[in-house]
Amino acid sequence: MTRILSLQMHDLRFPTSKFLDGSDAMNPDPDYSAAYVILRTDHPEGIEGHGFTFTIGRGNELCIAAIEAFRPFVEGQSLEGIVSEMARFWKLLAGDSQLRWVGPEKGVIHLALAAVINAIWDLWAKVAGKPLWKLLADLSPEQMVSLIDFRHIQDALTPREACEILTKLQPTRGEREAQLLREGYPAYTTSAGWLGYSDDKLRQLCRQGIAQGWDAFKIKVGREIEEDRRRCAIMRQEIGADRRLMIDANQVWEVDQAIEWVKALREFDPWWIEEPLSPDDILGHARVARGVRPIRVATGEHAHNRVMFKQFLQADALDVVQVDACRLGGLNEVLAVLLLAAKFNKPVCPHAGGVGLCELVQHISMIDFIAISGKLEQSMVEYAGHLHEHFIDPVRIERGRYRVPQMPGYSAQMKPQSIADNVWHAER
Amino acid sequence: MTRILSLQMHDLRFPTSKFLDGSDAMNPDPDYSAAYVILRTDHPEGIEGHGFTFTIGRGNELCIAAIEAFRPFVEGQSLEGIVSEMARFWKLLAGDSQLRWVGPEKGVIHLALAAVINAIWDLWAKVAGKPLWKLLADLSPEQMVSLIDFRHIQDALTPREACEILTKLQPTRGEREAQLLREGYPAYTTSAGWLGYSDDKLRQLCRQGIAQGWDAFKIKVGREIEEDRRRCAIMRQEIGADRRLMIDANQVWEVDQAIEWVKALREFDPWWIEEPLSPDDILGHARVARGVRPIRVATGEHAHNRVMFKQFLQADALDVVQVDACRLGGLNEVLAVLLLAAKFNKPVCPHAGGVGLCELVQHISMIDFIAISGKLEQSMVEYAGHLHEHFIDPVRIERGRYRVPQMPGYSAQMKPQSIADNVWHAER
Repeated sequence: MTRILSLQMHDLRFPTSKFLDGSDAMNPDPDYSAAYVILRTDHPEGIEGHGFTFTIGRGNELCIAAIEAFRPFVEGQSLEGIVSEMARFWKLLAGDSQLRWVGPEKGVIHLALAAVINAIWDLWAKVAGKPLWKLLADLSPEQMVSLIDFRHIQDALTPREACEILTKLQPTRGEREAQLLREGYPAYTTSAGWLGYSDDKLRQLCRQGIAQGWDAFKIKVGREIEEDRRRCAIMRQEIGADRRLMIDANQVWEVDQAIEWVKALREFDPWWIEEPLSPDDILGHARVARGVRPIRVATGEHAHNRVMFKQFLQADALDVVQVDACRLGGLNEVLAVLLLAAKFNKPVCPHAGGVGLCELVQHISMIDFIAISGKLEQSMVEYAGHLHEHFIDPVRIERGRYRVPQMPGYSAQMKPQSIADNVWHAER
Repeated sequence: MTRILSLQMHDLRFPTSKFLDGSDAMNPDPDYSAAYVILRTDHPEGIEGHGFTFTIGRGNELCIAAIEAFRPFVEGQSLEGIVSEMARFWKLLAGDSQLRWVGPEKGVIHLALAAVINAIWDLWAKVAGKPLWKLLADLSPEQMVSLIDFRHIQDALTPREACEILTKLQPTRGEREAQLLREGYPAYTTSAGWLGYSDDKLRQLCRQGIAQGWDAFKIKVGREIEEDRRRCAIMRQEIGADRRLMIDANQVWEVDQAIEWVKALREFDPWWIEEPLSPDDILGHARVARGVRPIRVATGEHAHNRVMFKQFLQADALDVVQVDACRLGGLNEVLAVLLLAAKFNKPVCPHAGGVGLCELVQHISMIDFIAISGKLEQSMVEYAGHLHEHFIDPVRIERGRYRVPQMPGYSAQMKPQSIADNVWHAER
């Protein structure tokens, strides 16, 4: 038995706004931040669970305060007790009758839930001595289904259907695992296309990306249409006709405006348009999707729970499922969305970047391929080249692909010095 | 000029769970709470703006922390500067590029926005020497439209359409104002039907309600179907065939389950079914609405912003628009939803109860009748008889109708002693 003795939190903020890393039409000056959780245990080897939720600066303190509200549910519990009935545990936190009022299952309280749940998964994988993707790959379909809270999605996916999806792929899991170990997982880079970067920097970063072996690039759009045409032209010119170019508007448009704007960028052959509208606007996305086909609509980094993804899929409002490891209520809810995506036959391309999101989502995409969708053709993991140096098991990219992580855990653990150096103090 | 010198906050909690007031299928033991804001000013008469957001206990501290994050936007500002361009001010807070990440426009950060915005409205109305509904009733259509952030709703309602809706009713505002002053605004009571109350107490409260002149009653359902049939039968028996009976499931069902369950209660002639599903499930509500007609679907107390209401209306997923004064980002966003409801020709029946919600929403319904929908036949304000004694200008109910508030402000101000007595301390 491994008992969780304490839950510690750290408000970590990195001053990324100084360099306009991460700048887009909605977020001109993010300071990548983590509301960071450490679960200390009585494990004889001193194993800890690390997890976090991601924010972009102000408001990170709210996630810290919300994690504090979950402390009584976690401290004193045994890992084995939690994971033996993990959907029940997840519901206990997500459904606390008073706390859910300030969500429910959205915003600060749900971001905080992700930090706690992800730390438990990190702990579980470390105790099991496996990287998280492998811990999952070794679970039976029944065990995996038992991790999921199916409330409010059973009109789209029942536990039985989920089990069937998993069972169909179970005999061939090993083949896909071997393929991943050989080839890695496909990825694209967002690092070249931030809105705050100059044309020269954009051009230079495209060339650098090609030299590194990238064959898919994302560029931020949505501030000014002529500027977008100029910047997309530069990117397309640099990367050539055969590499993928994705555009990302970060929620700034109205419905009709989105359709027109995307059409004005059609000549640059975007592989998808990402976040054209408010992330809550399912019906609006459905209209945009109909209006811009064959260009595909991608969204999800701000889709706050499985109920939203269910509807996006039911309404045929998204073509690319961009789950976020921290916006959803941790890995358990992510698994629900992967299963929904498999049911509706849509590719999963997780949102990443920021601080630590790449480290987390690589596991998500790998388990999706091994056990849930079984597909790779239309799937990519996002990559941005920031802040990986703070992690003890950072992502490894080779020729535009994620190598398979090998260290036990969820790759979520930061170096002690990085934690110490980046604790934020309000009075600074 | 009235300058806002300071923003103070109080975490107020009332131990309502001791008496099972407010108990329902989702919320067995709420402690009605307010994250309470006081704006102190340099007004020569010492006028203050009071506002709050409502929660049910744990998590209230998160709203307090989020209000703190808005402090720099408010302190030092002049009231006149804020209200001269109030949509701009609203956007500044709702759209802060870092804070919006932990929403956006939902959950803790949006509840906190409501507290701040509502306090500004209270201040404005007090400085103007008018109750809030009257301050609004004296604005021109153009002034009213200028209060609203139309981002992400323009595919359903443009500023021009909003102005047309308001202009059509402008010449007859006086008639409706006079009617309200004479007759009050229709209401229904939730006080009889809490799930935690015994059959005897339910029966006794129905009789008491009838004696007080109520002709519409709400009862909580969703825990156990036979129990619901027994309790609905008691209520229908007590209130007779002609009074309205509404049922409220507080989000506990799946889609098919909701349709079946409501059909099993059909014989008690419910006037609406409230919150059958997850509040995020627009498409699910549309299916329930089609499945249970002519029984109408009501929802909205957990619909977190104008984008959600827009879609509920576009999808024909709700028949009764239950705006909440604090779940939406304060009065400015409430006005957007009232205009959407008018455009789609659906009645507004605000969510109330808790602590102070009745005090707020009476103003909302009255301005809806005077200036926006112009209709009263299908509209009612919710009423629950808890905690009114803490307010300096509590609601006045006569024969099941809200009397029109007369004191300047948004009726949001609690008595100093009530504030002092109910400040919550974590260590208690």
